[in-house]
Amino acid sequence: MKKQIQFADQKQEFNKRPTKIGRRSLSRSISQSSTDSYSSAASYTDSSDDETSPRDKQQKNSKGNGDFCIKNIKQADFGRREIEIAEQEMPALMALRKRAQGEKPLAGAKVVGCTHITAQTAVLMETLSALGAQCRWAACNIYSTQNEVAAALAEGGFSVFAWKGESEDDFWWCIDRCVNLEGWQPNMILDDGGDLTHWIYKKYPNMFKKIKGIVEESVTGVHRLYQLSKAGKLCVPAMNVNDSVTKQKFDNLYCCRESILDGLKRTTDVMFGGKQVVVCGYGEVGKGCCAALKAMGSIVYVTEIDPICALQACMDGFRLVKLNEVIRQVDIVITCTGNKNVVVRENLDRMKNGCIVCNMGHSNTEIDVASLRTPELTWERVRSQVDHVIWPDGKRIVLLAEGRLLNLSCSTVPTFVLSITATTQALALIELYNAPEGRYKQDVYLLPKKMGKRDTHIHMSTGNVMKTVISNS
Amino acid sequence: MKKQIQFADQKQEFNKRPTKIGRRSLSRSISQSSTDSYSSAASYTDSSDDETSPRDKQQKNSKGNGDFCIKNIKQADFGRREIEIAEQEMPALMALRKRAQGEKPLAGAKVVGCTHITAQTAVLMETLSALGAQCRWAACNIYSTQNEVAAALAEGGFSVFAWKGESEDDFWWCIDRCVNLEGWQPNMILDDGGDLTHWIYKKYPNMFKKIKGIVEESVTGVHRLYQLSKAGKLCVPAMNVNDSVTKQKFDNLYCCRESILDGLKRTTDVMFGGKQVVVCGYGEVGKGCCAALKAMGSIVYVTEIDPICALQACMDGFRLVKLNEVIRQVDIVITCTGNKNVVVRENLDRMKNGCIVCNMGHSNTEIDVASLRTPELTWERVRSQVDHVIWPDGKRIVLLAEGRLLNLSCSTVPTFVLSITATTQALALIELYNAPEGRYKQDVYLLPKKMGKRDTHIHMSTGNVMKTVISNS
Amino acid sequence: MKKQIQFADQKQEFNKRPTKIGRRSLSRSISQSSTDSYSSAASYTDSSDDETSPRDKQQKNSKGNGDFCIKNIKQADFGRREIEIAEQEMPALMALRKRAQGEKPLAGAKVVGCTHITAQTAVLMETLSALGAQCRWAACNIYSTQNEVAAALAEGGFSVFAWKGESEDDFWWCIDRCVNLEGWQPNMILDDGGDLTHWIYKKYPNMFKKIKGIVEESVTGVHRLYQLSKAGKLCVPAMNVNDSVTKQKFDNLYCCRESILDGLKRTTDVMFGGKQVVVCGYGEVGKGCCAALKAMGSIVYVTEIDPICALQACMDGFRLVKLNEVIRQVDIVITCTGNKNVVVRENLDRMKNGCIVCNMGHSNTEIDVASLRTPELTWERVRSQVDHVIWPDGKRIVLLAEGRLLNLSCSTVPTFVLSITATTQALALIELYNAPEGRYKQDVYLLPKKMGKRDTHIHMSTGNVMKTVISNS
Amino acid sequence: MKKQIQFADQKQEFNKRPTKIGRRSLSRSISQSSTDSYSSAASYTDSSDDETSPRDKQQKNSKGNGDFCIKNIKQADFGRREIEIAEQEMPALMALRKRAQGEKPLAGAKVVGCTHITAQTAVLMETLSALGAQCRWAACNIYSTQNEVAAALAEGGFSVFAWKGESEDDFWWCIDRCVNLEGWQPNMILDDGGDLTHWIYKKYPNMFKKIKGIVEESVTGVHRLYQLSKAGKLCVPAMNVNDSVTKQKFDNLYCCRESILDGLKRTTDVMFGGKQVVVCGYGEVGKGCCAALKAMGSIVYVTEIDPICALQACMDGFRLVKLNEVIRQVDIVITCTGNKNVVVRENLDRMKNGCIVCNMGHSNTEIDVASLRTPELTWERVRSQVDHVIWPDGKRIVLLAEGRLLNLSCSTVPTFVLSITATTQALALIELYNAPEGRYKQDVYLLPKKMGKRDTHIHMSTGNVMKTVISNS
Repeated sequence: MKKQIQFADQKQEFNKRPTKIGRRSLSRSISQSSTDSYSSAASYTDSSDDETSPRDKQQKNSKGNGDFCIKNIKQADFGRREIEIAEQEMPALMALRKRAQGEKPLAGAKVVGCTHITAQTAVLMETLSALGAQCRWAACNIYSTQNEVAAALAEGGFSVFAWKGESEDDFWWCIDRCVNLEGWQPNMILDDGGDLTHWIYKKYPNMFKKIKGIVEESVTGVHRLYQLSKAGKLCVPAMNVNDSVTKQKFDNLYCCRESILDGLKRTTDVMFGGKQVVVCGYGEVGKGCCAALKAMGSIVYVTEIDPICALQACMDGFRLVKLNEVIRQVDIVITCTGNKNVVVRENLDRMKNGCIVCNMGHSNTEIDVASLRTPELTWERVRSQVDHVIWPDGKRIVLLAEGRLLNLSCSTVPTFVLSITATTQALALIELYNAPEGRYKQDVYLLPKKMGKRDTHIHMSTGNVMKTVISNS
Repeated sequence: MKKQIQFADQKQEFNKRPTKIGRRSLSRSISQSSTDSYSSAASYTDSSDDETSPRDKQQKNSKGNGDFCIKNIKQADFGRREIEIAEQEMPALMALRKRAQGEKPLAGAKVVGCTHITAQTAVLMETLSALGAQCRWAACNIYSTQNEVAAALAEGGFSVFAWKGESEDDFWWCIDRCVNLEGWQPNMILDDGGDLTHWIYKKYPNMFKKIKGIVEESVTGVHRLYQLSKAGKLCVPAMNVNDSVTKQKFDNLYCCRESILDGLKRTTDVMFGGKQVVVCGYGEVGKGCCAALKAMGSIVYVTEIDPICALQACMDGFRLVKLNEVIRQVDIVITCTGNKNVVVRENLDRMKNGCIVCNMGHSNTEIDVASLRTPELTWERVRSQVDHVIWPDGKRIVLLAEGRLLNLSCSTVPTFVLSITATTQALALIELYNAPEGRYKQDVYLLPKKMGKRDTHIHMSTGNVMKTVISNS
Repeated sequence: MKKQIQFADQKQEFNKRPTKIGRRSLSRSISQSSTDSYSSAASYTDSSDDETSPRDKQQKNSKGNGDFCIKNIKQADFGRREIEIAEQEMPALMALRKRAQGEKPLAGAKVVGCTHITAQTAVLMETLSALGAQCRWAACNIYSTQNEVAAALAEGGFSVFAWKGESEDDFWWCIDRCVNLEGWQPNMILDDGGDLTHWIYKKYPNMFKKIKGIVEESVTGVHRLYQLSKAGKLCVPAMNVNDSVTKQKFDNLYCCRESILDGLKRTTDVMFGGKQVVVCGYGEVGKGCCAALKAMGSIVYVTEIDPICALQACMDGFRLVKLNEVIRQVDIVITCTGNKNVVVRENLDRMKNGCIVCNMGHSNTEIDVASLRTPELTWERVRSQVDHVIWPDGKRIVLLAEGRLLNLSCSTVPTFVLSITATTQALALIELYNAPEGRYKQDVYLLPKKMGKRDTHIHMSTGNVMKTVISNS
Repeated sequence: MKKQIQFADQKQEFNKRPTKIGRRSLSRSISQSSTDSYSSAASYTDSSDDETSPRDKQQKNSKGNGDFCIKNIKQADFGRREIEIAEQEMPALMALRKRAQGEKPLAGAKVVGCTHITAQTAVLMETLSALGAQCRWAACNIYSTQNEVAAALAEGGFSVFAWKGESEDDFWWCIDRCVNLEGWQPNMILDDGGDLTHWIYKKYPNMFKKIKGIVEESVTGVHRLYQLSKAGKLCVPAMNVNDSVTKQKFDNLYCCRESILDGLKRTTDVMFGGKQVVVCGYGEVGKGCCAALKAMGSIVYVTEIDPICALQACMDGFRLVKLNEVIRQVDIVITCTGNKNVVVRENLDRMKNGCIVCNMGHSNTEIDVASLRTPELTWERVRSQVDHVIWPDGKRIVLLAEGRLLNLSCSTVPTFVLSITATTQALALIELYNAPEGRYKQDVYLLPKKMGKRDTHIHMSTGNVMKTVISNS
């Protein structure tokens, strides 16, 4: 497979993924440490119980259907419960399912999807199915699949190809199995990160003749689509779900306000009261982190270079500092700037013993983790997602999720938040699938506030979110 | 064994503990759901890997010592890491260890202890040992032992008798093994709950001749001591650690402010923003819960009967209500009144679908869980510590920890908080052990602010807490 | 003078201003109630000491200059102190004065201004003068002039025509005196509300030949400029200062967060703790009001029709209601929606005895005050800006500032906030005055982030705000 | 008059009161600066309109009664309005008036009082009168009398001897006029500060034969009573109103949370957002100040020597510092430690230009103001209660209320808070007056939770506070 320039990021990411050996040692620590955990639906399920690759297994669901590839079909019951729990916190999507069910606005739609396989995605998929669509699905991340949810979907008749702990080769194999099926051609794409779209571009470009549109959720994927569009290579309309107001506010401010606490607590059990914390960046994510930690009694410092955001930090009562001013005294360092190398080796060298370092920002590169992989430093994996990096003098820093996104790696995204994105995705599919000839060109669009004669849908969605909100209040 | 009246509470609690069957089904859901968890040092370790009772195993540590009974000595390395992590958040205790090490104020002390066996307790025990004491230890709770920590202690030469998942018979057997040893007699008791003290009273009353004092941490245990004292049966001085100011503030206000969020998040992943919550009781625990949830964007109502606390709730911006006024609309119900049957079946019947119900209060009886064990209601264990109770019409309420203390069952107590209690316990032992004849009678005492010529110790302790605090700020 | 359609708003406002009789009774209550007040620099000075109209007085400053018309030149010393106090909270403007002083970027500029005459404006005027400009100034509001500041400016050589308590005729007379001077023609306009601009359009349209640009601060004035532009009648470039990000954030969120408390306290001394408040509207102003009152222990409800803002209110922990749901129970009603008739007679009829009603929104018409002027209701002016409206059954509601903007009428705007606007105004004047031919057309512009080769200025400004901010933190 | 040792404090205070000259310059600045103020009911009224001493005037009320001495009986109408406004925020006292009116529990009581003469006191006096008591009243402070309220009381038939701006000689003359009347002897004392009690002890010791008890509100007065009791010289029972829980919480935490903002705003108009503040002391007052300023976006540091309070500050998210660490950078310094010389000249020398310094603590001596009265420093009174102290290099610090209590001098105490104290005072009078022989000895008591067969009263009171609270919520 040839990768192009725009895939550089992703390649890099693959390189950073733990090697076999790394993961093995991870497994060891897991089997020792944790068990009766209070982990949640979104936590990643264990693959240690069975070392056979799903690709080498033959499984069928209770109706004899075997068009899927997952870890263990026997986990279906437990996965079903997780899905039912999720449904309770996704009122807008459930309302959409209920109202549009008679109408079947997705009748005839053949949706191929590539997203995180979680209970919330399952609610989305079952909603699409209730609205008339056929779905085939792969995971957009090699670690994030909830095996029991994948099992429940397979048991429910969905063609799912995903498990927790895929290799890179598995990853592309799963995507290919979704797309490449005799006698079935997708006419809609639902993507998260652009890998699925990329694969079809590379391997089956002819498929785009039948495809009515792409719905893309992630920053990265949207960025790729705009690149394609600029280069004149985008051959179908695409819907940018990432940049809707609600998604922005929810995924960032409100979600991070909760997940920063959750992520830190689950990994380190640190007490927040009285701790000194520096938050790098005061965008929406930083605002959420700062508000939460302040409320828990932490003393919070902010670094920020944008003058408007800096003023906001200041007016919100946070002391603006340069990282170096406080690096020796803080107990926790959190990055969320969107930039590279915000915390570098020099900073890490100066931190005090026991300092916790983690990233809430978009990219993996805010903390220069690579700089810590030098011979004089010892890494010790103390728990899943928690490394002690030990200096020659015995000083330890506590690095979370190897500098990857803390809230994706070590916390859970509240279902209510995901509900809003999932509803928007469903509406985008409905809109693109039903849009009259000519409404959308080969370009990237934001979801319109009104959708032709179907403008009720979006109102309904907003209405339902509101209904939820109001019934919550 | 005959139990007396004052042990009624505990008996009741034993009856409530899951039966074999209950625990089996629990184990099943665990093995399916969680593994690569973000559970912490304090989370309870799994016993499912090996069904042999520790009582039936012969184990020795690497030095050939076998005077202990634990789950699996091989977990010692992992336990040692947990202890080392804990040390980092227990600066006051570590400072006490360092300063008093030369002096050995506990030289000759033979301490028998019965507490939760966790990493934090291990730091306490190793401190006592560094100060000159010999220790034998059992668990004060059949579930709370961290097996790997017990292993590390055994490997380090401590006589520990404890594992996660003891039966009631195991429980008393372990205590007896601590006390009943040829050629060794305890001269100090460190108790949490009063079971150890009770056992010695019943079985080995003569031991009290050599015992210099009892240090007791829990409300229940302290209550028993006062009863004994009143009845003229207390035959040694006792130190009430429970009622110190720092412990009260830390265990209640500051600790609960964090653990309410943690406990709810780990069990339900609920998003707090926009949720309606009723908190029953506005004592220190209630204040902590309310402050935390308000900060996360919940709308919080308070029920309170004490006029002063009610005024405080009011002035703090919480709407005072009667439970019935809001029971139909709230998303979360939290009890922390210290009273019985605060939430009864009638309230539970009126809650809306998906309502989460949990207890942060002292006793297990704030929520009338027994009233939910009727034929028309279906119980479904969806995760560890999480039950769905399902009404005939399909309504579900989400009951956490079967109404037991949420923060003990589903969260972790921050090490920093435990550090303060542990330091106080150590100081109380030092004081009682070294007090001149006549300073303490056969009565229950609070730790004095100054300890005779040793008043440096308490200052040091306060000093160190302060030092920590100030170095944190 | 003929007024045109777009001036309707203003006319209406004039009609609402207290009549002679109204003001007299106001004066009476003042002389009784207050004196040794803690009123601040921005509070409006008394005109009751001397009933002679300034237009009938002959005054000269200490240098013999008489080209001004103010209340009392003898108050100059006191005004100077107020200006000096203000300088301390306007660091960005003082820095601009200092840095650009050598360069004199406004050399040759003849600025005619019409703004509130306050200590902060004086700092702006003296800065413009230091940068090389000549200034003539009138008040944009008949009540807001600080007489002592006007005196200090006159004493300092500025041609100021303004006093507290002008009649409508006085108002236009003052503006005319600024503009209509033999041998002097303005080449720059600094306006707040558009009255000055309007006057020149009507009376001296030829002046625009020499005018290089208009800088306008207010919503109303900017609105008028866009109307002119649309109609093709705008004959010089104009700079819209109102819509800069900093102004928006400062004037609304951060400023109102403080002034809602201040305005309520100074007028009613109400205790916020435990009070129930409904805030109508959750835009920036509403967000500020809600945050402040919540922090003071009030129970806050929000009404909001925009779904995004409603979601934000919800996620921020405020209960969304319809006004009618809570109108009977609340202690305070605050409007800040930007709409008309948000609180109508029917709502007012249902409020409880003692309910406080006030407006923080843009227009005077959010509360339908006119509906209260019916025979069965008695109005009682209990203090300046505070009316009791009394129902036949004795119920009183407490109406503040007759429904006008509470924070302008009954509080003070912090100098720091005004400093940011004033700096932006100065920069806009510099930019328009120095812009090369053709950079600006006859249109309305926002201040550019970079100003040609002078882009250092804006950086300097931002830099100074930042410097202030950082030195504050 | 000879003063004794225990009166030293007060003497000192008298010495600090502005001299004639000082007050004259004060008057000048007032007449220039303020007028149409938004000052409130509790603001102190002006005496500048009429320079004749009330002692030299002959005034009668509309019924021809002249047994009073106040500023100006003509202000009675305005004072009546202030009283009516106050009644609305004093529900518990109004309820007491209503319920006990039939019963007249104070029939025959002759109460001599010495308190602040404000609208709230007037509501208390009129309640006592409605319950059957006769009252004669003087002011406990030479500045705090609201002249218009005194007028309304005189008009209503009360014998009031008080005006704003008494001399020390006036002060004692007024007290004497209350007590020393032919044919009338008090049988109850209601005191605030102990001056009235002291006067009777010195001048009319025989009066105590008929006096049934003393109700004392202030810390100072209570302290004196305990001294008398210790010395065996207390000859009647006394009730300590100061140390009731509600008073403590209300007067300190909740009240100061609001008045710190109000006091700073009215005197300086400072913007709180982004300001750096150091609060000296983290008792109840400090907690209130810190919470309020944090909520307004200030960055707050705390100094504290008590370890428990320090821990609380820390856990509440405030950085603990030593004053010297931050003195150069802070914008505002607030003292509330209860100690002397917390801020000394050395600290004042190091403050930055424009730093605001004020005291919220009990005594006048927390800021060493005397140290600022040296020749090289210039004092400039810029507004009432606001002095600029100017260093030779031009640096100014802004000193509020000359270091006296900010919230008493520059803010208002919310009526709701005063209502709780006033209700307690009334109940204490009822209890002492009606207590059976022997219930109270010649000692100092706290108000009992139950009052003999009258225990309904205290319940009623609590009940009403609660009723208010609950109806507020």
